[in-house]
Amino acid sequence: MVHSEKLDVDLKEIYDFAISLAKQAGEILVKESSNRNHNIKLKKNTVDIVTETDERVEQFIKTSILSKYPNHKFIGEETYSSGQTRDYLVDDSPTWVVDPLDGTVNYVHLFPMICVSIGFTINGKTVVGVIYAPFLNQIYSAYKGGGSWLNETTKLPLQETPLSQEAPKGCIFSCEWGKDRKDYPDSNLHKKVESFVNMAAEIGGRDGKGGMVHGVRSLGSASLDLCFVATGAFDIWWEAGCWEWDVCAGFIIVEEAGGLITTANPPPNTEVIPPAHLGSRLYLAIRGCTDNEHEPAQKSQERVVREVWRRVRQLNYNRPGVN
Amino acid sequence: MVHSEKLDVDLKEIYDFAISLAKQAGEILVKESSNRNHNIKLKKNTVDIVTETDERVEQFIKTSILSKYPNHKFIGEETYSSGQTRDYLVDDSPTWVVDPLDGTVNYVHLFPMICVSIGFTINGKTVVGVIYAPFLNQIYSAYKGGGSWLNETTKLPLQETPLSQEAPKGCIFSCEWGKDRKDYPDSNLHKKVESFVNMAAEIGGRDGKGGMVHGVRSLGSASLDLCFVATGAFDIWWEAGCWEWDVCAGFIIVEEAGGLITTANPPPNTEVIPPAHLGSRLYLAIRGCTDNEHEPAQKSQERVVREVWRRVRQLNYNRPGVN
Repeated sequence: MVHSEKLDVDLKEIYDFAISLAKQAGEILVKESSNRNHNIKLKKNTVDIVTETDERVEQFIKTSILSKYPNHKFIGEETYSSGQTRDYLVDDSPTWVVDPLDGTVNYVHLFPMICVSIGFTINGKTVVGVIYAPFLNQIYSAYKGGGSWLNETTKLPLQETPLSQEAPKGCIFSCEWGKDRKDYPDSNLHKKVESFVNMAAEIGGRDGKGGMVHGVRSLGSASLDLCFVATGAFDIWWEAGCWEWDVCAGFIIVEEAGGLITTANPPPNTEVIPPAHLGSRLYLAIRGCTDNEHEPAQKSQERVVREVWRRVRQLNYNRPGVN
Repeated sequence: MVHSEKLDVDLKEIYDFAISLAKQAGEILVKESSNRNHNIKLKKNTVDIVTETDERVEQFIKTSILSKYPNHKFIGEETYSSGQTRDYLVDDSPTWVVDPLDGTVNYVHLFPMICVSIGFTINGKTVVGVIYAPFLNQIYSAYKGGGSWLNETTKLPLQETPLSQEAPKGCIFSCEWGKDRKDYPDSNLHKKVESFVNMAAEIGGRDGKGGMVHGVRSLGSASLDLCFVATGAFDIWWEAGCWEWDVCAGFIIVEEAGGLITTANPPPNTEVIPPAHLGSRLYLAIRGCTDNEHEPAQKSQERVVREVWRRVRQLNYNRPGVN
């Protein structure tokens, strides 16, 4: 048994339970997907939506968890979002942080990049994470110290390779347009797009910021973006505006695959690379890698972090008490 | 037997043969994918690459086709690209137009959005198309008059729904950053991104051009983009810069699923919606849809075409003799 240091929590048991829950939730998602006239409710605007399926799957997961672990806390996207505050509710207690359906826009359009995302935190850090993408037949899972896995049998990352010495050149850059589409100078949309273009433009372009990344990818699911960072497919994921349930499970899946996660917003002093805060809504993930002939793996990742920070704008997703 | 009108060509036989070829080619792609240190050659720049696998799979497909149909013409991405001209080589004769590996950047990074794309044209029009994405376990196929299919059993589109009356609002917009990353005013990169932002920005933004699309997606494979137009997942695909082998099979898969394909570049007179030219490098695809209470299906598609044209810039991919 794998016990967390201070609390009487059996991580392996929780991990197995989370996998079983994710599989059952995924079955509901597949079964209900054929109903394209989903009863869609708007949240903040016409691209921020929730379906009845989101709510039903969250209720299933919540009930299952609280029956088995009545002393654990539960935070789900749908119950949270229907509340009045935008407070960060994760604390030191054993807490489940769940997105019943990440990629709701994809789901209603039947684009298969959707998943259920189940994270479990202790002391505010994810220690178990399971992400199941039923249309891809892929389940990504990890627990603290147990490694990161695809379909429970294939260890991640898929291959052990160094990061490019010329990064971001040679890297796949994953990013999302998101739901914040305000059009005014220095809006988040404008600053995001300026950052994307810096990463994509030719070397020498954009006043020296051109990154000439190998490819720019946008899938519409933060959870799956993180899974593809864990496999090694995406070298860099830079995103802001999503929430803790979008990234909670993905954090540990990336970390156990050797990845690094920090803040999307370049800090004034880039000497120190701070760990990402789960509730910061500002994330930058770099895939796991091997040492190269010039530097150890972590130094490579930190180099790539700084190369990204040099090319991206600070975004406005301040959240009281978090950042 | 389904014979083309003028030539003694059995489309169903060619279709079945193309499916069998695609499956065999996909097996090679999967088998060789684990070798991450692909022998990569640069074509035009550091994001325009070809692997030895591309070349091996193309050779396999070409040899198989010319053994069975010695009188047919073969155009493959790799043999074409290594040639000296950029001429458009598709003519009226029975011609196979093949991309052995669409999504080469994805392939070398082990991102599963890759496929083999096999098209067959007569009189310059695609009449058979097969796209196999082995990591997704999805095969998309169609022949003229035979409908469009997922995994040979599920008819496309997946659901019969109208296009949004407020389109592009409510639509998933698929686009690609591509390989052309030049950074100067009115470069293709700049004009592409300006167009993307118009499609994404809030209604009322961008001097009235804000389209508030439901989502912006970039997968890195034109062939698969077209497959997701055929399923109905992507309402709109707007792309320029790719070549006939990237879209040849996708054309018939979209058309047989009720989709419409025209040019990416807004013409001076938007009254008439011209069919896309296979070799134009400028494409706009709209998914199949049902009539709505205001207009028949084709009118809805044409309305969406004009709504896109109103928001996008003319791109520079002129090709002598084609556009």
